[in-house]
Amino acid sequence: MIVVVGKENPALVEAAGEQELVFLDGWEEVAPGVVESMEAVIGRVPAEVLTRAPKLRWVHSPAAGVDADLSPQMLASDVVLTSSAGNGAIPLAEHAMLLLLMLNRDVPRWMRAQAEHRWDRFTHGELAGQTLGIYGLGNAGMDLARKAQAFHLRVVGVRRRPELPSPYVDQVYGEDGLDALLAESDFVVVTAPSTPATSGRFGRDAFARMKPTAYFVCISRGGIADDGALLAALRDGQIAGAGLDAHGVEPLPPNSPFWDLPNVIVTPHNGATSTATARRGEQIVGQNLRRFRSGQELLNVVDKSAGY
Amino acid sequence: MIVVVGKENPALVEAAGEQELVFLDGWEEVAPGVVESMEAVIGRVPAEVLTRAPKLRWVHSPAAGVDADLSPQMLASDVVLTSSAGNGAIPLAEHAMLLLLMLNRDVPRWMRAQAEHRWDRFTHGELAGQTLGIYGLGNAGMDLARKAQAFHLRVVGVRRRPELPSPYVDQVYGEDGLDALLAESDFVVVTAPSTPATSGRFGRDAFARMKPTAYFVCISRGGIADDGALLAALRDGQIAGAGLDAHGVEPLPPNSPFWDLPNVIVTPHNGATSTATARRGEQIVGQNLRRFRSGQELLNVVDKSAGY
Repeated sequence: MIVVVGKENPALVEAAGEQELVFLDGWEEVAPGVVESMEAVIGRVPAEVLTRAPKLRWVHSPAAGVDADLSPQMLASDVVLTSSAGNGAIPLAEHAMLLLLMLNRDVPRWMRAQAEHRWDRFTHGELAGQTLGIYGLGNAGMDLARKAQAFHLRVVGVRRRPELPSPYVDQVYGEDGLDALLAESDFVVVTAPSTPATSGRFGRDAFARMKPTAYFVCISRGGIADDGALLAALRDGQIAGAGLDAHGVEPLPPNSPFWDLPNVIVTPHNGATSTATARRGEQIVGQNLRRFRSGQELLNVVDKSAGY
Repeated sequence: MIVVVGKENPALVEAAGEQELVFLDGWEEVAPGVVESMEAVIGRVPAEVLTRAPKLRWVHSPAAGVDADLSPQMLASDVVLTSSAGNGAIPLAEHAMLLLLMLNRDVPRWMRAQAEHRWDRFTHGELAGQTLGIYGLGNAGMDLARKAQAFHLRVVGVRRRPELPSPYVDQVYGEDGLDALLAESDFVVVTAPSTPATSGRFGRDAFARMKPTAYFVCISRGGIADDGALLAALRDGQIAGAGLDAHGVEPLPPNSPFWDLPNVIVTPHNGATSTATARRGEQIVGQNLRRFRSGQELLNVVDKSAGY
C-alpha cells in the first residue's frame, strides 16, 4: 500500500496501476493499520510516524530540498528518500536573474519615481562584463549559469563534485575554491541545498572576502548565510546589497531588519512558485511511482550523508 | 576641419591625428568661418546649420536611433550620416528581460509587501515555454533573442529584411508577418527604430490582435505605439499590461495616465543609460574618425530612405 499525503489525484492513481493508493489529509487521523502496512509514502513523514512503519521502503518528498525531511530517524533508517529536485530549477534561475537586474539597476528607485510621477533618469550598471559566482551547481545553478552566459557575464561556480561536467561555467571550483569565488565575483548567488556542510557557510569571514561593490543573492535556503553576519555586512557597507528570497526564519517576521534596509530586496520564498513547478513535481512523482511498481531504479534518490 | 559638439576629449584628439578638431559647447556662438569650413561634425546638427555648411560631408550622431537627426534638410543633402547604433544594445536587451520578468512575476506586488513588512507569497508565471515576439531584429533585438532562448522562450521576430541571418530566432517574419507575431506572442517587445514605416505601427488594430494575456514592452522609441490606442488597450483589458521605457512624449508628463495604471511599469527612457554605453559610443566615434581620416568606409552609415 502507498500513502499519498494530499488530495485525490487521478494522474497518481493512473501511475500507481494496481498498487493501492491511500490519500491522507494529514497524519493526525489515520485509519488503523495504515502506517503499519504502508510500503511507500508520497509526502512528508513525521519522525514519529517513521518509527511505527516497519514495512516502509520509500518516501518521496514533494520538495526539491529535503533538509526538513532528514530527521535523525530518517537518517538512521534504510528507507529510500527521493526528492522533487529540479521541479523549480528554471523559475529559480529566472528569479535570480530578476534579482541581479533589480539590484544592478536600482529598480526600487524607478518604482518610487513611478509612484510619484517623477521622471528620474540616472546612470546605472549593466550585467555584461561582470562576474557571477554561483554557490551550488545543481539544477537551478546550472540553468542560472546558462542564462548568465547569454547575459555576457563571466560565470564561476563552486560545487561539491567539481569533476562533474559544468557546461556554461567558465571556472569551476570545489568547496575549497569558495574564497577565490568570493573575491572575484560581482554577484554571489546561493543555489545550494541546506546541508550540514552548507549551513552557516556564509558568515563574517565570507562577507569580508566579498568586494564592497558586490551583491549577495540567496534563492535556495535560509541559514546557509548567517543572518547576523549578513545584516552586519549590509549595514557596514562591506557588501553593496542583497536580494533575498530564502531567509533564515520564514515567514520573515514583521520586525525583521531586512525589510527596511535600503540596499536589500526581499521576496517571500516565492521564486519557484509557479503552476509549472507543481506540474513538473507531479511528473517526477508519477515517474517514480511507475519505477517503484516495476522495480526500476528511482529518480532523485537522496544521498542522506550529503543531505541532498 | 572637424567639429565636435561636446567637451574636449583626448581620445578623439588622438583618433583625429592631424585633422583639426574644434570642440563646441553648442551652435549658438560659433566662431566666424567654422560652419562654412567644417567637413565633418560629431554631434547633432540643426537643420538651419546644415544649410550653411557647403563643405560638410559627414555627420556622426551620438544616438543609436537617428530619427531626430533626419531633418528634411538632412534627407535632401548628400551628407553621409552615421549613427552610434549598437552602443546600447546589450543594456537595452537587459532592460527588456527585466521588464518581462517584472511583469510576469508582478514585482510591484512584492515591492509593496516589502514596504509594509508583509510576507505575501503568491503563485506567479514563469517565462520558460512562453513566446516572445520581437519587433525589430537589430543589435538590441538580436541580443534580446539570445537571452530569451537561454530563458527557454520561443522567439519569433519581425524584421524589414527577413532574408538576413537571425541567429537565436525560431521564426523570422518580414513586415507582413506582424499580425502572425502579434497573435502568437505572450510578450511583444518593440526594439525597432522610429522611422516613417514604424511610426504608429502599433495602433488599435495591433493591440486587438494580441492575446488578452499578453504584455507589450517598448524599449526603443515612443510613437511606434499610438499612445491613445495603447492606453485604451490597457484600460479595457485587451492586453494584460505593459513595460514602457520609451514613451510618445518624453519626459512623460506628471499628469500622464500611464504612471498610475496598475498593470504598467514605467521607466524613464533609461534602459541603456550605463557608463559602458557611453564608452562603446566613444569607441564607435573613434573608429569612424580614423576611417574618415584614411578614406575608409564609415561604420553605421544610415540608410536615409529607411530612416536608420
